[in-house]
Amino acid sequence: MEELLEIKDIRTVIETIFNQKIPFNRYLGMRVGSLDPARPTLEIDMREDLIGNFVHNTLHGGVTASILDVTGGVVAFLNLLDRLSDAPVAEKVARFAKLGTIDLRVDFLRPGRGTRFVSTGYILRTGNKVAVTRMELHNETDTLIAVGTGAYTVS
Amino acid sequence: MEELLEIKDIRTVIETIFNQKIPFNRYLGMRVGSLDPARPTLEIDMREDLIGNFVHNTLHGGVTASILDVTGGVVAFLNLLDRLSDAPVAEKVARFAKLGTIDLRVDFLRPGRGTRFVSTGYILRTGNKVAVTRMELHNETDTLIAVGTGAYTVS
Amino acid sequence: MEELLEIKDIRTVIETIFNQKIPFNRYLGMRVGSLDPARPTLEIDMREDLIGNFVHNTLHGGVTASILDVTGGVVAFLNLLDRLSDAPVAEKVARFAKLGTIDLRVDFLRPGRGTRFVSTGYILRTGNKVAVTRMELHNETDTLIAVGTGAYTVS
Amino acid sequence: MEELLEIKDIRTVIETIFNQKIPFNRYLGMRVGSLDPARPTLEIDMREDLIGNFVHNTLHGGVTASILDVTGGVVAFLNLLDRLSDAPVAEKVARFAKLGTIDLRVDFLRPGRGTRFVSTGYILRTGNKVAVTRMELHNETDTLIAVGTGAYTVS
Repeated sequence: MEELLEIKDIRTVIETIFNQKIPFNRYLGMRVGSLDPARPTLEIDMREDLIGNFVHNTLHGGVTASILDVTGGVVAFLNLLDRLSDAPVAEKVARFAKLGTIDLRVDFLRPGRGTRFVSTGYILRTGNKVAVTRMELHNETDTLIAVGTGAYTVS
Repeated sequence: MEELLEIKDIRTVIETIFNQKIPFNRYLGMRVGSLDPARPTLEIDMREDLIGNFVHNTLHGGVTASILDVTGGVVAFLNLLDRLSDAPVAEKVARFAKLGTIDLRVDFLRPGRGTRFVSTGYILRTGNKVAVTRMELHNETDTLIAVGTGAYTVS
Repeated sequence: MEELLEIKDIRTVIETIFNQKIPFNRYLGMRVGSLDPARPTLEIDMREDLIGNFVHNTLHGGVTASILDVTGGVVAFLNLLDRLSDAPVAEKVARFAKLGTIDLRVDFLRPGRGTRFVSTGYILRTGNKVAVTRMELHNETDTLIAVGTGAYTVS
Repeated sequence: MEELLEIKDIRTVIETIFNQKIPFNRYLGMRVGSLDPARPTLEIDMREDLIGNFVHNTLHGGVTASILDVTGGVVAFLNLLDRLSDAPVAEKVARFAKLGTIDLRVDFLRPGRGTRFVSTGYILRTGNKVAVTRMELHNETDTLIAVGTGAYTVS
C-alpha cells in the first residue's frame, strides 16, 4: 500500500490497484479501459481458460459475474470520489479499501460469444452508506451479453 | 463429447465434465465434492490467484459468484435427471448441454476468509422449462460466506 | 374472457384486462398510461391506503414492487405480440394468460414521496421461453424512486 | 407515535405498528402472526381484491412481494432488537423508523392458490449498517409459493 500513497493522482492509484494489485483481476486478465465517472469501462479478452460452455466456446458465467461485480465497484467508488474531492489520497485509498459488495444480480441475456468483452456501468443511487449501480457487458460487436445490478457499502 | 457418451454412469459423466471439461472450472480449481441430488457440493481451495481484497487476503467476489452459479446448475441438472431416469445417457448429456443460467443473485454476507470453500444448494422449483435453486458457500470452519439464488433454463 | 375476444384490437384488450379485470391492479388504482411497445407506462396516484412509512407518508415498498412487476409483464407481453403479429386475438389472449413472473429484483433508491407515480420499462431479452425486462418508477417531478429487473415466462 | 412510546413492551409496539399504523399493511389485511425472533410470521387471508390472475384466482405477485418485503423488515428489526436489549423503548422505535429496504429479490415458485398465506423468514447477516434476510411464503396447505431475499439498512 505504501508505494500507492506516493502516487498523487487517485485515478492512477485505482487503475494500478485494479490492474495489478487485485490478484484475481490479474488472473482473469481484466483491465481498466476508462475511469470516466459517467461511464467507466473494464475489458477482458477471451481465451481458452475463461470458457464455460465447451461446445459453444462461450464465456463462463462466473467471468461475466466477476467483471460486472468489479465494474459496479468502480462505478460506486468513482462516485464516492466526487464527494471526497478535497480529501488527501490516503483517505481516498482508505475509503476504497472499505468498499464491499452487499449483493449482485446478474442477468445472462445471450451466450458469451466474442473475442473481447467490455463492461460499463452507471450509478443509480449514491448515499453515505450504500451505493446502487447498474452494469452491462457487451462483446466486440456491441452485442449485449449480460446486465447486472449491485448494491455496495461505501463507508 | 464422444468419449463421454461411452461412460455408462451419468454421474461420472457430470463429474468429468465439471472437473475436466469446463475450462474455467479447471482454471479456478473447482471440483465436484458430492453429487447427492439432495445436497451436492462443489469445492475450491484458496490460493493467491483467487484473492480479491489484497489487504485482507479474502476470496474475490467473482470466485464466489462463479462457484455459486455452477452449484445452482448442478442442483438443477441433478433434479432434471430424476425426471429423465429411463432415458439413455446421450439424451441426458444433450439436456445438460442446454442448461443455462437465466439470472443469479449473490449475497456477500461475510469476508471470504479461509483455506477451503464448500458450496452446496437445493432445489426450490423444478419445472419443464425453468428450475430455481438456492445456494450457500461456507469456509472450512463452516462460516457462511455467501448465499445465492439462481434461475436456470432446463429445456 | 368471452367478451374480451370480441374486441378486435389486442391493445384495447390488454388495457381492459390491466385496468378492469385484474382485481389487485384495480384495488391499487393502477392504470395503463401508454402501450407503446418501446416505452409502455403504468400510473398510480398516491393515496392514504398506499402509505408504507406513516411518519414520512411515503409509498409502501409493496406498491412499488407491484407496479414494477406489472410493468415488466406488460413489456414482455408487448414484445411477444410483435412476434405474434398475424395470430388471431384469441391466441394472443391465450398467450397473455400464460405469462408469468419467474423472479423480480427491486432496488429502492429513494423514499416514495409524491402524488403520482409513473412506471416504465424496456426489454433486455426476448426469447421463446423467457423474457427479461428492466423497469423504473418515477414520481410526478421525475425523481427516480426505484428500479427493477424481472424474468418472465412467455410460453 | 406518542401513544406508542407509552407501551412498555417493544414487541407490542411492533405488532401495533405493523397491524394498525402502516396503512398499506392494513389495506392488504396483513397481520403479525408471531414475533419469535428465530421465525417470525406474517399472515394474510385471500380475498377477491388480492387476485392477480383472474382465470386461476391466484394471489397477485405484488401481494406476494409486499408480504415478503415486510417479513424481511420484521426479521431485520427483531435481530437489531437483540443488540439494543438495554435501550429504552423510544430509542428502539427510533431505530425502527430508520429501517429501510435496500433491495428485494422475489422468486415466484408456484401459483398463489390458497385461502390463507403465511410468510416467515430468518436472518442471514446482521451488521451495524446492513441486514440480509431470506423469506418464504406458504399457503394453508404448506405449499411453498414464493421465496425472497432482502437487504435492509438498519442504522
